[in-house]
Amino acid sequence: MTVRIGVIGVGMIGQEHIRRVTHALSGGRIVALSDVDRGRAEKVATSVPDVRVHAAGEDLIRSKDVDAVLITSSGQTHEQYVLASIAAGKPVFCEKPLATTEDACSHIVDAEVAAGRRLVQVGFMRRYDGAYRALKEAVAAGRVGAPLLVHCAHRNPKVPDGYVTEMAIHDTAIHEIDVIRWLLDEEIIATRVLRPRRNSRASAHLLDPLVVMLETESAVLVDIEVSVNIGYGYDVRCEVSGETGTVALGETSSVTLRVGGASSGRIPTGWQERFGRAYDIEIQEWIDGLAQGRLSGPNAWDGYAAAAVSDRAVRALKTGERATVSLREKPELYEVR
Amino acid sequence: MTVRIGVIGVGMIGQEHIRRVTHALSGGRIVALSDVDRGRAEKVATSVPDVRVHAAGEDLIRSKDVDAVLITSSGQTHEQYVLASIAAGKPVFCEKPLATTEDACSHIVDAEVAAGRRLVQVGFMRRYDGAYRALKEAVAAGRVGAPLLVHCAHRNPKVPDGYVTEMAIHDTAIHEIDVIRWLLDEEIIATRVLRPRRNSRASAHLLDPLVVMLETESAVLVDIEVSVNIGYGYDVRCEVSGETGTVALGETSSVTLRVGGASSGRIPTGWQERFGRAYDIEIQEWIDGLAQGRLSGPNAWDGYAAAAVSDRAVRALKTGERATVSLREKPELYEVR
Amino acid sequence: MTVRIGVIGVGMIGQEHIRRVTHALSGGRIVALSDVDRGRAEKVATSVPDVRVHAAGEDLIRSKDVDAVLITSSGQTHEQYVLASIAAGKPVFCEKPLATTEDACSHIVDAEVAAGRRLVQVGFMRRYDGAYRALKEAVAAGRVGAPLLVHCAHRNPKVPDGYVTEMAIHDTAIHEIDVIRWLLDEEIIATRVLRPRRNSRASAHLLDPLVVMLETESAVLVDIEVSVNIGYGYDVRCEVSGETGTVALGETSSVTLRVGGASSGRIPTGWQERFGRAYDIEIQEWIDGLAQGRLSGPNAWDGYAAAAVSDRAVRALKTGERATVSLREKPELYEVR
Amino acid sequence: MTVRIGVIGVGMIGQEHIRRVTHALSGGRIVALSDVDRGRAEKVATSVPDVRVHAAGEDLIRSKDVDAVLITSSGQTHEQYVLASIAAGKPVFCEKPLATTEDACSHIVDAEVAAGRRLVQVGFMRRYDGAYRALKEAVAAGRVGAPLLVHCAHRNPKVPDGYVTEMAIHDTAIHEIDVIRWLLDEEIIATRVLRPRRNSRASAHLLDPLVVMLETESAVLVDIEVSVNIGYGYDVRCEVSGETGTVALGETSSVTLRVGGASSGRIPTGWQERFGRAYDIEIQEWIDGLAQGRLSGPNAWDGYAAAAVSDRAVRALKTGERATVSLREKPELYEVR
Repeated sequence: MTVRIGVIGVGMIGQEHIRRVTHALSGGRIVALSDVDRGRAEKVATSVPDVRVHAAGEDLIRSKDVDAVLITSSGQTHEQYVLASIAAGKPVFCEKPLATTEDACSHIVDAEVAAGRRLVQVGFMRRYDGAYRALKEAVAAGRVGAPLLVHCAHRNPKVPDGYVTEMAIHDTAIHEIDVIRWLLDEEIIATRVLRPRRNSRASAHLLDPLVVMLETESAVLVDIEVSVNIGYGYDVRCEVSGETGTVALGETSSVTLRVGGASSGRIPTGWQERFGRAYDIEIQEWIDGLAQGRLSGPNAWDGYAAAAVSDRAVRALKTGERATVSLREKPELYEVR
Repeated sequence: MTVRIGVIGVGMIGQEHIRRVTHALSGGRIVALSDVDRGRAEKVATSVPDVRVHAAGEDLIRSKDVDAVLITSSGQTHEQYVLASIAAGKPVFCEKPLATTEDACSHIVDAEVAAGRRLVQVGFMRRYDGAYRALKEAVAAGRVGAPLLVHCAHRNPKVPDGYVTEMAIHDTAIHEIDVIRWLLDEEIIATRVLRPRRNSRASAHLLDPLVVMLETESAVLVDIEVSVNIGYGYDVRCEVSGETGTVALGETSSVTLRVGGASSGRIPTGWQERFGRAYDIEIQEWIDGLAQGRLSGPNAWDGYAAAAVSDRAVRALKTGERATVSLREKPELYEVR
Repeated sequence: MTVRIGVIGVGMIGQEHIRRVTHALSGGRIVALSDVDRGRAEKVATSVPDVRVHAAGEDLIRSKDVDAVLITSSGQTHEQYVLASIAAGKPVFCEKPLATTEDACSHIVDAEVAAGRRLVQVGFMRRYDGAYRALKEAVAAGRVGAPLLVHCAHRNPKVPDGYVTEMAIHDTAIHEIDVIRWLLDEEIIATRVLRPRRNSRASAHLLDPLVVMLETESAVLVDIEVSVNIGYGYDVRCEVSGETGTVALGETSSVTLRVGGASSGRIPTGWQERFGRAYDIEIQEWIDGLAQGRLSGPNAWDGYAAAAVSDRAVRALKTGERATVSLREKPELYEVR
Repeated sequence: MTVRIGVIGVGMIGQEHIRRVTHALSGGRIVALSDVDRGRAEKVATSVPDVRVHAAGEDLIRSKDVDAVLITSSGQTHEQYVLASIAAGKPVFCEKPLATTEDACSHIVDAEVAAGRRLVQVGFMRRYDGAYRALKEAVAAGRVGAPLLVHCAHRNPKVPDGYVTEMAIHDTAIHEIDVIRWLLDEEIIATRVLRPRRNSRASAHLLDPLVVMLETESAVLVDIEVSVNIGYGYDVRCEVSGETGTVALGETSSVTLRVGGASSGRIPTGWQERFGRAYDIEIQEWIDGLAQGRLSGPNAWDGYAAAAVSDRAVRALKTGERATVSLREKPELYEVR
């Protein structure tokens, strides 16, 4: 059974997912497109066989040819399309963020709870990365004892001038916020944001780097270096320090070069190189799950909790103080079954 | 356009490819099966939608529902099915070896030349491995100057008792023989096989390890440790030593563990773990190529040349002497265009 | 010219230095010993040729056979012996800490300033470690641009029950406090101490691990994981994250083992293994400097500044708040010449 | 008790050892010098306290102020000075080679056997390198099972034009020849030398690289890449492949740099950087042994056996064939006691 997918938003990431489903993965087919820029949707449609362009995302969602919705439009539109998908009773994959505020995410949770079944998956692709999965497996197997600390770094070579300081949290550290919840299987209850010496290569308006600190329910302390103009590469590091040892993402250069007085390995240049394969697996597992009638990926609650933490972190950045995170009560729908 | 594939031989590797095409890749569909054990074919067919079982491989090849043939039957049957595919004018992917002898491979080359177009691809999956591709790219870019030496190791944790010494060359070192030709883009002209101290853990009849040495047209010297009972893991190493540096397959453990006085990374346990992804890419690129009417993978000449070298290496193992390799003239069909 | 050295305090570290000077280094000779436990001094003396035992440290210091003093007695006695050495106009090497409080260290600074010349060296041996020196060299050479962040870990396999929480700062993190000042060549102006989840393997009275955070004059932010019951080894990590890259202490296992599914390197079991060679170089350079009439190692100001920071860190641990460090004005004697 | 040492030959390596004994090590003193170029000896003497210059090496050897002799003159003079030292009944440390031919080495063995006690140590410094010692320890402890193969590389950035092909064996591979005998604790019984593609950067008269192969008594097979114009650094690699695993010299860059798209570690630029510390330990252990009346380092037999193998390897290079090594019977004097 082929899953018929409608895509809302056909910018870079949307086109990537269309290519993925059409040319690299199995079991799914892109049957409908929609974009705020209709011309762009028409253009993208020319390279996808048998696809229909809808004027509005809501039309696409309601179309009876569409089994499942994939939202890759801009963040501010996520809430409306996710709610419409829930209303239509259709499974929906929404790229992160689930919505741009904690409140908006909470509305989605309400809607899904009201619908009485899980329909929403959020695009936190790191959970599908082989190295992160091996990290989680090692922690879960008790290889390092109970986790006590996690040291993370999220380094980007460069960001455009339009990137503002809040994005270091909402768009960049959000990945660590989700991955920590998933890795440790518990909620984050407090956060602090520290401001180190500024990188003189960053835009004048930008605080870069930042150190985002998180505390979990069991008091695990997490430090995250967020550096977005470090030049040398796209480098994501994570080390869990436990009671009896540590486990960290490995160095994974596929080749080692010995030239010019140095032994060296390659560092990825961007997230596409580092996480491209994780996106493949993420979407393939979503399609496979749909075909089998189950959802297993990050859900609306995960999207809500990440938004709650990142909202508080933005506030903490402004105050310089520790901020506690208060989550709403977790609906039963999201308990693991 | 979906490529309709018929599979001959549905043992372990055949089933793997069926699963791959059906559940992990894009653009292909398994429409026909055949196996010397008809019952097995029937059984496998139950889990593949809309598939037809043929009594004989030749029937499957001739079936007009079949666009392309995938041969995963036992090695001795390869020649007949590849020749039949050529006769039917159908693209055929044949798992290595192309055929069990240099002569049989040469017949296939003759048939393909007579047909006047390339139809055959051989399953040398290492050419699709990301690390080997990065190695080739570094060499081709002149990162280490002209290559002078290559050091390889092909280590298996264990082989069954039925594994005999010749298989260390025909089935194991054959991968290095192909990869060296591809990596250096030249033919192998001589070989030697040396017998180190025996591993006492190997079957009594088995010479293990061996060191297979190869010389290329430009005098690059290659040493290959073939160890098939080394216990610790499935470990494939390759370092090219050039005029100004070296480049080697990297250490690629996805996580690093620091416990019990050691910092450690994981080594794969088998070829499935190490090369599973390469198989995916190999078959996907084959299907993509078929859809676009082109073949780009290892061809019949590559299968022939690898067989010629491995035949000579088996002889060299027996005599203990250096053996020269004499290839037939290379038909124009196989010149890169 | 042989430097004649008197040693005050002949416990483990004192005996180590005696052995070092007598059997491994050049240019120095142990001529006098003193210990609060006279019997222990007599016993140690039996294995040192031509050595004299003094009843009191002050006698040893005043002895005209003694050119230079090496203090390895317990921390509380450091102040009196260092002051006595200064009063006697003799060069003195004092194991860390210079003294147990910021005030005591300040008295030493006063005395040395009054004496008008530098006599005091403090035993911060990491400055003599080849890896830390290479780290400093890379930073100083601008290999990573201006430093913005430093991530440290100081991990001990285990501490005795007598080890109390303050010692995690005064005795353990003190090494990072000094090394950061030296590495970045600036003072620390503030500190915070965070308390992660406790290691259940630690003594009931102990907060372990801690995260000590430091801020420097130029706003470099430093995080230090101090884990003293982590079991797996003695592991000291340090990574400087700069404007254009990072540089870190390397992995330095002398051999790599590939067994049992893992590729692994050894982690030291204790500070003796990790820093034994640094101690050799530290004492050799001290002796060489004495012979040439110069002191180049960490001085009384360094001892004072480290004590000032660690005193504040202990307070910060108690309050949970950020604490600023106020150093006295730096006497001209300690400006680099 | 200070060991009084006389040095014959005060070129670069001689001066290095003089500096070492005088300024870095303990227990020895340079009391006498001699050099074929008397002026050079006089000049070096000006920087060594209380040292006497002898016109002839033999005078120095006979001088009653000299307890032990250190020979760092040119290779052709080694035999005469070692024999003179034996005749004088004095311990002698001779830089490698013990003598330039197998026969000359054999005369030294005869002389020492006639003298009835061990006096000679040969300067194979790798046995004192921490990494090689850890390698031997791992092998001896059975960490990888019985050794079956050893893969070595001895890479130099560059050699002067005066370096001829035979030196790749006599001066370069000689270190691997000795280290293999020591590491595996058995003799080498055959050798082969293979000639890969030439490095175009080498002098026109030079065959570079070479692959030297060795077989031991228990049939362990050793391959040694000798590359002496590889440019990128001084790089010594060694991996022992055993029945259940492998152990190799580690990557030991003291720092790891992450800049410009790569994670990199430093490779030494020359043998001084790589083995400087091993020389220190070698000479210190020699002096310590002399003070205690024992010799534990590589002895005359080791010098003889290495010469016998390298002589045969030079012949094998010329013939292109496997050459067997026939050692004389090993005198009882050299059995381990």
